[in-house]
Amino acid sequence: MEKGRILLSVTGFNPQRWHELLSASREVVLKPDGPEDPSITYAVVWKQPANILAKLPNLRAVFSIGAGVDHLFNDPGLPDVPIVRVVADNLTQHMVEYIVWRVMDHHRQGALFRNQQQKKIWHEPPQRLARDISVGIMGLGELGRAAASVLLGLGFRVNGWGRTDRPMAGVETYHGDAGLVPFLNATDILVVLLPLTPATKGIIDYGVLRQLRRRNGLGGAVLINAGRGRLQKDADIVRALEDGTLKEASLDVFEVEPLPKTSPLWSHPKVFVTPHSGATSDPAHLAAPMLAQMDAFERGEPLQNVVNREAGY
Amino acid sequence: MEKGRILLSVTGFNPQRWHELLSASREVVLKPDGPEDPSITYAVVWKQPANILAKLPNLRAVFSIGAGVDHLFNDPGLPDVPIVRVVADNLTQHMVEYIVWRVMDHHRQGALFRNQQQKKIWHEPPQRLARDISVGIMGLGELGRAAASVLLGLGFRVNGWGRTDRPMAGVETYHGDAGLVPFLNATDILVVLLPLTPATKGIIDYGVLRQLRRRNGLGGAVLINAGRGRLQKDADIVRALEDGTLKEASLDVFEVEPLPKTSPLWSHPKVFVTPHSGATSDPAHLAAPMLAQMDAFERGEPLQNVVNREAGY
Ligand SMILES: NC(=O)c1ccc[n+]([C@@H]2O[C@H](COP(=O)([O-])OP(=O)(O)OC[C@H]3O[C@@H](n4cnc5c(N)ncnc54)[C@H](OP(=O)(O)O)[C@@H]3O)[C@@H](O)[C@H]2O)c1
Ligand SMILES: NC(=O)c1ccc[n+]([C@@H]2O[C@H](COP(=O)([O-])OP(=O)(O)OC[C@H]3O[C@@H](n4cnc5c(N)ncnc54)[C@H](OP(=O)(O)O)[C@@H]3O)[C@@H](O)[C@H]2O)c1
Repeated sequence: MEKGRILLSVTGFNPQRWHELLSASREVVLKPDGPEDPSITYAVVWKQPANILAKLPNLRAVFSIGAGVDHLFNDPGLPDVPIVRVVADNLTQHMVEYIVWRVMDHHRQGALFRNQQQKKIWHEPPQRLARDISVGIMGLGELGRAAASVLLGLGFRVNGWGRTDRPMAGVETYHGDAGLVPFLNATDILVVLLPLTPATKGIIDYGVLRQLRRRNGLGGAVLINAGRGRLQKDADIVRALEDGTLKEASLDVFEVEPLPKTSPLWSHPKVFVTPHSGATSDPAHLAAPMLAQMDAFERGEPLQNVVNREAGY
Repeated sequence: MEKGRILLSVTGFNPQRWHELLSASREVVLKPDGPEDPSITYAVVWKQPANILAKLPNLRAVFSIGAGVDHLFNDPGLPDVPIVRVVADNLTQHMVEYIVWRVMDHHRQGALFRNQQQKKIWHEPPQRLARDISVGIMGLGELGRAAASVLLGLGFRVNGWGRTDRPMAGVETYHGDAGLVPFLNATDILVVLLPLTPATKGIIDYGVLRQLRRRNGLGGAVLINAGRGRLQKDADIVRALEDGTLKEASLDVFEVEPLPKTSPLWSHPKVFVTPHSGATSDPAHLAAPMLAQMDAFERGEPLQNVVNREAGY
């Protein structure tokens, strides 16, 4: 029996590498053949054009390039087939390293030392230990849990907040609307690893930042967002930095990406900008597992990492 | 029986806090009473003035404020009593956090991203995972071993180099003169945590840096020195940075401290300077254990963390 074809539909980057790798065991096309292409059984997508998936009568599943799936829900013609997202050790490791890097740079006062160096100032500021600092992870899922576990290993206290009640050893967990304020009140460094859904859009606003703990000697709370840009309100972050609610922020994601040159975040002395590079979806590590899932699915095994459409992630 | 008095002899900082804390259970003086003060049984020192300890007939032990003891060996009149150095969880944790911070900032290309941000450049460079990088720890003692263990936890490959053969699980260990070049050849990021002794003085020179591994795509090796400044030759580091032998360096210690304003290291774009603040000797955590050691010693128990005078550390 011939294997069903893959539609590879991406916008915003060159899909060549994905095309090569997925072609290893299936035929891959960049566009359907005509308006109702029955030869296509899987779609591998990143921000697919609207309605392109709507008319594939034999489509069995959609695979998201990336851990987040918000990009494909913009499509009003998204068919009612399972959506599979990326969960991969390689991607998780990259993100954990990004989080450790940013947490450590804020914790060890990187900005202050860089400033001192520029002015040739030899001065040793007081320094707390990780064990005196609470990192709060908003979104305690695949990435959040992996980050939590490494941060615990470094000695930090860790809080976590999710939609449902999912305890984790060593972590003070909170969940749902009722858990949000207590979670924030106990957090010095906020790490955002939420998915973007109707419920989380714009959640990182001034009011939320205002609830973060501000302890003597720490000079304000810290925000690290590596989830999605539209979780946050860029302008509220600037406001919180200006009035001392926040001491510093590391942002990997922004309301509009690439971050417009006119954004005040680029040149804000308390903001560290990275270009959505917390963890890249590297086709070399992700394509083969996708193909393996398709084969397994056709042998009758269940799909892994299927998105809960109602929850939106 | 009256407890022997402590001579607290430091230069370079205000000893008031130490004085207060050590006074909790013993009488503390900042100078001996006359040239041969028989009332003093312990000295707690940081860079004590030459010959001040030589004429204390009842001196039983010298306690170094700090993990390193090079500062007290400059004294030609250093008496032949045991020298105790600091080994403390608090200090070790501070140093481990410093090392993790600096390793992660080099590994995740902090300098590149800060440069891009300054120019408002949105560009994602290739990024390796920790598991593709070998960190080599020169000086696999109390601090080096603790750092190694946390770096392993973060996924790095770890090499270690010491004077004697002391294996460590998960770490590729090397030792002695014969082990040095193979150790360097296998190392991408060199972390120096050696003590300063006649055998290690000036060891970090151009020839040693030249032996570090330089792999395609990494843009040169990285040096992190948190041991002592006189382990390194500042000028050789500049030379190695200029000719691409080194990609970047993080230096917490310098040949002369405070680092003179005239040093090219201050403004070198590839150098990150911290003012000997990797791990401070915090009296709040160190004074009580010192007093406890004195009491235990007087009960007949052996002193802990006694320096090997022949080896010089
Ligand atoms: N910057 C980058 O390069 C990059 C790379 C990869 C991924 N990401 C982002 O990271 C996100 C997380 O990835 P993941 O694999 O960890 O996702 P995941 O496993 O689905 O975890 C999502 C977490 O968010 C929580 N959550 C979802 N909706 C919530 C709500 N309304 N209120 C409270 N908590 C809510 C979930 O709670 P439950 O535990 O109760 O389900 C879960 O803990 C992705 O969606 C993507 O946006 C960014
Ligand atoms: N920057 C800061 O704020 C700061 C703070 C505290 C300490 N320090 C520095 O850190 C140093 C290390 O502290 P520690 O407590 O880890 O010391 P340690 O336990 O005595 O360890 C010293 C290590 O260096 C190795 N070593 C010594 N001489 C050597 C030689 N000639 N060749 C090769 N290896 C040699 C030892 O080898 P063996 O294992 O074979 O003995 C050991 O592994 C201190 O001496 C101090 O200078 C800096």
